[in-house]
Amino acid sequence: MPVRHALVTGANRGLGLEFVRQLLTAGDHVVAACRQPGRATALNTLAGEHPGRLHVLPLDLANPKSHAELARELPLVLGDDGRLGLLVNNAGVLHSGERFGTLSPAILDDSFRTNAAGPLLLTQALAPLLADEARVINLSSQLGSIASTTRFGTPSYNISKAAQNMATVLLARALAERGIVVFAASPGWARTDMGGEGAELEPAEAVAGILRVAGGLAASDSGRFLDWKGDPLPW
Amino acid sequence: MPVRHALVTGANRGLGLEFVRQLLTAGDHVVAACRQPGRATALNTLAGEHPGRLHVLPLDLANPKSHAELARELPLVLGDDGRLGLLVNNAGVLHSGERFGTLSPAILDDSFRTNAAGPLLLTQALAPLLADEARVINLSSQLGSIASTTRFGTPSYNISKAAQNMATVLLARALAERGIVVFAASPGWARTDMGGEGAELEPAEAVAGILRVAGGLAASDSGRFLDWKGDPLPW
Repeated sequence: MPVRHALVTGANRGLGLEFVRQLLTAGDHVVAACRQPGRATALNTLAGEHPGRLHVLPLDLANPKSHAELARELPLVLGDDGRLGLLVNNAGVLHSGERFGTLSPAILDDSFRTNAAGPLLLTQALAPLLADEARVINLSSQLGSIASTTRFGTPSYNISKAAQNMATVLLARALAERGIVVFAASPGWARTDMGGEGAELEPAEAVAGILRVAGGLAASDSGRFLDWKGDPLPW
Repeated sequence: MPVRHALVTGANRGLGLEFVRQLLTAGDHVVAACRQPGRATALNTLAGEHPGRLHVLPLDLANPKSHAELARELPLVLGDDGRLGLLVNNAGVLHSGERFGTLSPAILDDSFRTNAAGPLLLTQALAPLLADEARVINLSSQLGSIASTTRFGTPSYNISKAAQNMATVLLARALAERGIVVFAASPGWARTDMGGEGAELEPAEAVAGILRVAGGLAASDSGRFLDWKGDPLPW
């Protein structure tokens, strides 16, 4: 069986870094994308431990020009016939501390660009490099579930993740004819910089769960919203 | 019973203009907001037919500074103690003709700002001027229903309307303590410039239905997604 190529965004810390670790352990070739590769100490250490199997490339998800640059660089890593078997749209931003009365247009915009438009446009840019029957994991959140929203919360995040969920379904429809499976994955409340120390789940457990779920999906599952255990979440 | 003040955005044509007409007929005082009042011929004619009951004010929904200007102007129209009993967030934009492969960041951004961030930020700006137990109608669309999305469609619109639906629920939570009812209303496929001539419903029928639904809602209905007949739609 040929080696699989996987690309992970927001790969320098938190769940992204954990995806990279577990994919390397599973034997994949990994492209780790993050904003500042020069500062991604953990990734560069991992690259040293897995010679030739981890490449770190720059990506600013909120900037579509950066998507195009990544798409141009990628064939140099994948080789002429190489294709991505897995794309993990993990990068995201959470601007906490919002209150009704002072919601900021700039923060709503930035969250939308990074969390919703970002994964959609990046997947569009990389679509020619996706293998048939590839898996695309869009890291979503229970906070993006409109049906589950019982309090005011963090609107820029809630809204951007609901928007991302719609984008996930549209991507699933657009890529269906190539057998590519796209789904929205909620990692639960994992103990990362974003989730905080009070979170209930180890990142390793959340990531292992999501990869297990991704591996078990059929074409007919494309466009679903599933948690790290594979249980469906309401939109 | 004191006269009710109502504000309608995107009021110069289509469903917005129809909301203005029906609210005037019902006896409301109406503030009609649109981008270029000087060019809003139909509104200016209506203002002549209903002396002192219709005011036309400028609003560019995609520009938050314009929200603040409207909030400053409004007390001059409402009077010192006047409050809005009804806010109809009707203005919206549809950029049709999108295809996977050429989705544009600028169009995604513009749709998000106008259709999702716009109603949220405008309602925030006008919240001090809303009466207790006021109604806020956010014009949504079946195309914003993630659960109902079976084809690629018009992503900028689908995504912005799903985002708007989340914003509607968040507004409902934020304004619940004042008894204000906020809901997402799908007008069905109405025969407007946006809906096209092939549409199945007269604007007058859609608008009458939505106003009837708004009038019949209890506080516990705030945050729901309902069509013009009052039937619930899935998120």
